[in-house]
Amino acid sequence: MYVVKSPLADADLKTVSEALQGALVDLVDLSLVAKQIHWNVVGPRFRSVHLQLDEVVDTARLHSDTVAERASTLGVPPDGRARTVAADSGIGTTPDGWVKDTDAVGALVDALGAVITRMRARVGSTGEADPVTQDIFIQITADLEKHHWMFQAENG
Amino acid sequence: MYVVKSPLADADLKTVSEALQGALVDLVDLSLVAKQIHWNVVGPRFRSVHLQLDEVVDTARLHSDTVAERASTLGVPPDGRARTVAADSGIGTTPDGWVKDTDAVGALVDALGAVITRMRARVGSTGEADPVTQDIFIQITADLEKHHWMFQAENG
Amino acid sequence: MYVVKSPLADADLKTVSEALQGALVDLVDLSLVAKQIHWNVVGPRFRSVHLQLDEVVDTARLHSDTVAERASTLGVPPDGRARTVAADSGIGTTPDGWVKDTDAVGALVDALGAVITRMRARVGSTGEADPVTQDIFIQITADLEKHHWMFQAENG
Amino acid sequence: MYVVKSPLADADLKTVSEALQGALVDLVDLSLVAKQIHWNVVGPRFRSVHLQLDEVVDTARLHSDTVAERASTLGVPPDGRARTVAADSGIGTTPDGWVKDTDAVGALVDALGAVITRMRARVGSTGEADPVTQDIFIQITADLEKHHWMFQAENG
Amino acid sequence: MYVVKSPLADADLKTVSEALQGALVDLVDLSLVAKQIHWNVVGPRFRSVHLQLDEVVDTARLHSDTVAERASTLGVPPDGRARTVAADSGIGTTPDGWVKDTDAVGALVDALGAVITRMRARVGSTGEADPVTQDIFIQITADLEKHHWMFQAENG
Amino acid sequence: MYVVKSPLADADLKTVSEALQGALVDLVDLSLVAKQIHWNVVGPRFRSVHLQLDEVVDTARLHSDTVAERASTLGVPPDGRARTVAADSGIGTTPDGWVKDTDAVGALVDALGAVITRMRARVGSTGEADPVTQDIFIQITADLEKHHWMFQAENG
Amino acid sequence: MYVVKSPLADADLKTVSEALQGALVDLVDLSLVAKQIHWNVVGPRFRSVHLQLDEVVDTARLHSDTVAERASTLGVPPDGRARTVAADSGIGTTPDGWVKDTDAVGALVDALGAVITRMRARVGSTGEADPVTQDIFIQITADLEKHHWMFQAENG
Amino acid sequence: MYVVKSPLADADLKTVSEALQGALVDLVDLSLVAKQIHWNVVGPRFRSVHLQLDEVVDTARLHSDTVAERASTLGVPPDGRARTVAADSGIGTTPDGWVKDTDAVGALVDALGAVITRMRARVGSTGEADPVTQDIFIQITADLEKHHWMFQAENG
Amino acid sequence: MYVVKSPLADADLKTVSEALQGALVDLVDLSLVAKQIHWNVVGPRFRSVHLQLDEVVDTARLHSDTVAERASTLGVPPDGRARTVAADSGIGTTPDGWVKDTDAVGALVDALGAVITRMRARVGSTGEADPVTQDIFIQITADLEKHHWMFQAENG
Amino acid sequence: MYVVKSPLADADLKTVSEALQGALVDLVDLSLVAKQIHWNVVGPRFRSVHLQLDEVVDTARLHSDTVAERASTLGVPPDGRARTVAADSGIGTTPDGWVKDTDAVGALVDALGAVITRMRARVGSTGEADPVTQDIFIQITADLEKHHWMFQAENG
Amino acid sequence: MYVVKSPLADADLKTVSEALQGALVDLVDLSLVAKQIHWNVVGPRFRSVHLQLDEVVDTARLHSDTVAERASTLGVPPDGRARTVAADSGIGTTPDGWVKDTDAVGALVDALGAVITRMRARVGSTGEADPVTQDIFIQITADLEKHHWMFQAENG
Amino acid sequence: MYVVKSPLADADLKTVSEALQGALVDLVDLSLVAKQIHWNVVGPRFRSVHLQLDEVVDTARLHSDTVAERASTLGVPPDGRARTVAADSGIGTTPDGWVKDTDAVGALVDALGAVITRMRARVGSTGEADPVTQDIFIQITADLEKHHWMFQAENG
Repeated sequence: MYVVKSPLADADLKTVSEALQGALVDLVDLSLVAKQIHWNVVGPRFRSVHLQLDEVVDTARLHSDTVAERASTLGVPPDGRARTVAADSGIGTTPDGWVKDTDAVGALVDALGAVITRMRARVGSTGEADPVTQDIFIQITADLEKHHWMFQAENG
Repeated sequence: MYVVKSPLADADLKTVSEALQGALVDLVDLSLVAKQIHWNVVGPRFRSVHLQLDEVVDTARLHSDTVAERASTLGVPPDGRARTVAADSGIGTTPDGWVKDTDAVGALVDALGAVITRMRARVGSTGEADPVTQDIFIQITADLEKHHWMFQAENG
Repeated sequence: MYVVKSPLADADLKTVSEALQGALVDLVDLSLVAKQIHWNVVGPRFRSVHLQLDEVVDTARLHSDTVAERASTLGVPPDGRARTVAADSGIGTTPDGWVKDTDAVGALVDALGAVITRMRARVGSTGEADPVTQDIFIQITADLEKHHWMFQAENG
Repeated sequence: MYVVKSPLADADLKTVSEALQGALVDLVDLSLVAKQIHWNVVGPRFRSVHLQLDEVVDTARLHSDTVAERASTLGVPPDGRARTVAADSGIGTTPDGWVKDTDAVGALVDALGAVITRMRARVGSTGEADPVTQDIFIQITADLEKHHWMFQAENG
Repeated sequence: MYVVKSPLADADLKTVSEALQGALVDLVDLSLVAKQIHWNVVGPRFRSVHLQLDEVVDTARLHSDTVAERASTLGVPPDGRARTVAADSGIGTTPDGWVKDTDAVGALVDALGAVITRMRARVGSTGEADPVTQDIFIQITADLEKHHWMFQAENG
Repeated sequence: MYVVKSPLADADLKTVSEALQGALVDLVDLSLVAKQIHWNVVGPRFRSVHLQLDEVVDTARLHSDTVAERASTLGVPPDGRARTVAADSGIGTTPDGWVKDTDAVGALVDALGAVITRMRARVGSTGEADPVTQDIFIQITADLEKHHWMFQAENG
Repeated sequence: MYVVKSPLADADLKTVSEALQGALVDLVDLSLVAKQIHWNVVGPRFRSVHLQLDEVVDTARLHSDTVAERASTLGVPPDGRARTVAADSGIGTTPDGWVKDTDAVGALVDALGAVITRMRARVGSTGEADPVTQDIFIQITADLEKHHWMFQAENG
Repeated sequence: MYVVKSPLADADLKTVSEALQGALVDLVDLSLVAKQIHWNVVGPRFRSVHLQLDEVVDTARLHSDTVAERASTLGVPPDGRARTVAADSGIGTTPDGWVKDTDAVGALVDALGAVITRMRARVGSTGEADPVTQDIFIQITADLEKHHWMFQAENG
Repeated sequence: MYVVKSPLADADLKTVSEALQGALVDLVDLSLVAKQIHWNVVGPRFRSVHLQLDEVVDTARLHSDTVAERASTLGVPPDGRARTVAADSGIGTTPDGWVKDTDAVGALVDALGAVITRMRARVGSTGEADPVTQDIFIQITADLEKHHWMFQAENG
Repeated sequence: MYVVKSPLADADLKTVSEALQGALVDLVDLSLVAKQIHWNVVGPRFRSVHLQLDEVVDTARLHSDTVAERASTLGVPPDGRARTVAADSGIGTTPDGWVKDTDAVGALVDALGAVITRMRARVGSTGEADPVTQDIFIQITADLEKHHWMFQAENG
Repeated sequence: MYVVKSPLADADLKTVSEALQGALVDLVDLSLVAKQIHWNVVGPRFRSVHLQLDEVVDTARLHSDTVAERASTLGVPPDGRARTVAADSGIGTTPDGWVKDTDAVGALVDALGAVITRMRARVGSTGEADPVTQDIFIQITADLEKHHWMFQAENG
Repeated sequence: MYVVKSPLADADLKTVSEALQGALVDLVDLSLVAKQIHWNVVGPRFRSVHLQLDEVVDTARLHSDTVAERASTLGVPPDGRARTVAADSGIGTTPDGWVKDTDAVGALVDALGAVITRMRARVGSTGEADPVTQDIFIQITADLEKHHWMFQAENG
């Protein structure tokens, strides 16, 4: 059987791997939610929101890859399957059907807000256990918070 | 309320929109499954399979976007949310944890095979109703079958 | 005198070349109309509509070239002169002077709608006569319908 | 109603806007004429002339955009619709059907010559009224005259 | 032994694989013939024809790859060896030694004409059996016919 | 001490160098004002205005460099320090804090208008003294007036 | 009125926003000072110093944008106006007129040294309050110190 | 009739042109053999060998062009037709049908070995007659031997 | 004599500069070891391992430069000479001669493991003394651990 | 015989064509002189001057092409042969052999100065006769004067 | 005084440096002659010859740089001044004024032929003295002879 | 055990492989020495020398790869480990610590001189045994001698 000798002590590894798994699920769901609204948005700001959402998708896909490969690097298999994402994501339910542009912006403010709160908690919990992983969470938080600002400013 | 005047007759629209929704779910799941194995594969062919899977991800993401935007174009809101994907995908269950490279290749042969069978049925069912959508399914089938060949050849 | 031995039978050639000439006129006019509004649009969505219209221009110019060269390929000289376009285009009259952004979007919804209806008829009429030409019309229809969706969604 | 406070005095604005509208019509027509011959040329120099004409098209499209946006900048709505182009262009009639390569070159010599003569008059008439617009006409004249040389040299 | 489970029924597979093998041989030979004349052409139009032939080579190489990989995808090993090409190509004999530019253009008109006739027959025979393969043949026909036009126009 | 032998007579040099120094201060301030609003804008048009302002920044930075290096070229040291810019800029005071998108557009209309008026005066005053410098001012005016149009059209 | 719900507690937000505002002023001024000397440097090392200063400008512009947008992200409007920069910058006065190359290098050693000292203090004060902002300051410090080394080495 | 005044003496020209014609045939066949196996390889190393073979194809195509144009340069028409290649190639027969990856590597070791032996003989025979041609053969030998090493190392 | 005024206190400087010198030696040696095996690897996975090793070389060269320039930035001259590397590297002896691919992967697992252990110690020891340097070590550790995972997965 | 109908009156044409021919000779010689010193410069500033001279070469080659093609455009054959350049250039004699870096900079200051003086005279003499040509001379003067400043600043 | 210790014996150095100086003069003149005809060519093949000549200019400029820098490398100052080129070039006189396209091709055949003859002599004379320089001459000869073929083929 | 059938006779192979191993060691050491001084240089020419040294590093790394892979190609495993380089390099000892820019240039003149002398001997000894390898040494010598010229010129 395949076992990676982790550079971390067991307790640290548990802390860090739970944080990574949680972040993976949130980020994969964020990419799916942003795409869902990218396809369903309507209203005068359609084009602007449509394009802006693809930048969120790019961010979410990039970081989900980083987070999953960090888990593998530490010897813990990541889980980013649809069923797991549907069950464990920190983002609330996205309604189906067309979405007005103002509601679309509001939905992203909420989704990003939910993920950021959880990501900041991960920054706090992993600094001792593995500063390398913490550094990854800090970068992700910075990027998500910047997107968050932009959607807030649009509904400001 | 937002209503798009569809260029298709009602019965045709029903046929085509069901085919598009089904294709969307299959392709989003294919992108998630391929990423899952991309992260969890182990064995001597690790690097080769790891890279090859990202090409499947690129194909699946590109075509899921085309298919979803085609649905919107015809006036039918697409649904690519995690819960929907988990419920309706044509791909069988992917086990969690590490995957040996030979099993990884086998899993892709199965996943691609399942999606191709359903996609060929969509090519058959949509030609009358909307040749534009059919043409999209033909392109997707060509790409998926090429990936299918390559994974089969590796386990040949 | 220059005569190209066409790969098509006479009746088929007549059907196909009329369809190509009609498509050429529609597409050249679409590029001129989209530019006209690109220059004259005003209102809060100015920048978004201004940029979006140039994407329509790119699509129309690209496909007008494809369609005209397909006619030449089949041995029929295409006609894309201003006088011919003004006389035969399927797009209704564009008013001169400044255009409010909402009206600009509406004008494109109408112009694209008119061209799409005629293009779908061409898809239907050329499949027997020349599947190569039909395939070109299918690609054009797909692109035009995608633009159509986006403008509809903006006024949705 | 939308009114731009023009940086020019009324009489100057009239002079300049008429020059810009005339240049716009000439340049749009030049792009259509060059494309028409691009598609219909035949003869031993086919390939060379076919490629060269697309460079004229690029020049004409680029400068028609500059000229139209300069008019909008000065507060005057430009008019580049097919009907207007067909009515007001300074270029003579282009015959339909195939064109021998030597005749194609001659047609461009004539078309460019006609546009250059009018453009030089615009350089002369606008220097007092608006040196910014005059500078644009100078650049356009330089480019058109260079194309003119090349077609003359080919029939030299 | 290596066996691919083909998505096609046996009779359909036979039809499609013979068409693919025939297309492969024609396209490989077209690339060799075009290179042969690329190297041996002489006369005042040397440079123009020399460059144009490399565009034919690019088309032929690109599509020969597509066609061969489509055969492998369907579970049928393609055969593009020199001996097979020499025996089965649909293009007539190319003489050795220097070729005058006018003759070079004529030779390409003939070679492309022969391949197009056979390719159109393949479009007709494969539509029922496999629309994916048919779509590939349609694209190839479109490209070859465009080259055909250009060489005809040069000797027009 | 460092003295450049200027190609201009003393009186001409005085005229030209004062114009260049004035233009430098205006352009540096324009880049700072546009950035300030780029960071502080809020409202439904946030994204569109945010992006558009960076294009103004690019224009202002590019031309401030050209203008400063032109002064050095003529032997006159340019002065683009914060204190000088704060004291001598032709742009009125920008308020601090968040800016509604409509106000942001209005602020740019005013700022660009103020700079354009002064720049046109410089075009008028330098033509005799140094046509090389005048040509630079003409190019700058053309670019600034185009930005001016776009912001006016948005509030149109 | 526009209020962003900050992810930070009030006291932390005060600490962090003061640090960000201070950093913004320092970095904008650094970009202006480096440009000022870029234009006014003379002496045998002119070209080398002239080019090197533009790399400092790039660094300062990039990081001033990051810092200002971080402030907006946290709900605090940044202030980068000329007057504010002139009043609050941590960089000493830059003399006007030509600058000998050796003095230019010395001026940059001083300017960078002053900014680095303040930036290191910000790294120290923000770690508790907001690790995301601290991480940004660490990156900025690393870049500034590398420039500092290079200018020191040149006068070494 | 077309005669190029060769810079070489007659005996030298005979030596050199035979060497160039032999090299052309070997290189064209190498490109066909490598493509044949590129399409037919199966087994766990499929992807690696599939990609590696396209690099051999690139090398063979590039050098066949160089060699053929060198012959034309010296006044001798090159012959790269399928029939000539099938008759004169120095590479042994390639079997048809699927090829196991280990056999594929072995086939390339043999094919490259055969061509290298003949190419080294050409380096030896042409040094006196034409050092320019010899230099071309030396470059080709270096590239082919590097590919040879890599395939040997894979079966090592 | 050249003395840089370090931003660090003496004791901190000693800690940090020893860590940087140690990291430099490890990274230079890692680049040499990876190249050595890149040249000497044999076996069925030759191509995959050969390419993968060059990615390790790129990482090691990039970071050795960063580390050495950080030392210079702090006023401490780095030492990356062959003799120093041979004496102080933390990587065990690499045997000479050919290396089987499985052994090559194992050698990299060992080499990367040794460097990572030492790099994590440096992350721990430098956080107090200089967070800027610590941040560099964190980035390096992240990159090395990712490579480590990949080689482990290949022998998994 | 080949005669271009010039858009200029005879007297104007004489003025403009003499100016263009003079500019052509100066610019070709400038490119040769700059290359000559590029190859022969020695001294501590070797690398900096060596690179800077190639930027002068680029400017001179670009503008010599523009100027010569402008002459052809006006129907006057340009003359840029070595003998003509050697006889008519406005640049003084360049000594042969190695050149100290300080002398190299001085030589360029002189050469550029000589060409600028003559180019400014051409700006003055051609404004009436042909504003298009004048505009070209203005751009050239701007570029040459910028190079002039930089070389002066280096010896400042 | 500046003396480079040459790696060659005195007699060898004399041989090699004379060959390099001769080659430099020939190549600079070739670039000037090709440009001269590039500007003055007229006739139906204008465009084709005009473009082809710029490729000769590129070759000549590239190799003149290589040759001049090789001389400097060996310690011998190169001389590429207009006067030297006019006096020592191996290319016969180019007439002034317009050149018919057929004559233009003939002139290049002659010019290239003259340079090639002298370049081959240099290949012969330098092999003993300096194989590095000889290798450079071999590459130049290969490139020039390829251009030579193409111009010959055009008049063939 | 892995044995490559070398294309060379045993005695030739011994000659060539010793030359290749010697060249490898020299080139790896040259890359390390150039980096060492790149990091430690100080003085007014810091920036120029710092950049120039990275070009030497690029050359040395590129050619060390070519040389090592040539050895593998001939069946002889290359040895580029730190210990081997420290023991066998032809470059003298580089002192540790800061290096004044003038001394840095001198050190490179010496290091390059030492490597060139040995490389020229390898050109001489391998021509009979393997012209392919000799050609590689000739290219390397040309590049190293060009760098040598530039450093000599800087201290000239």
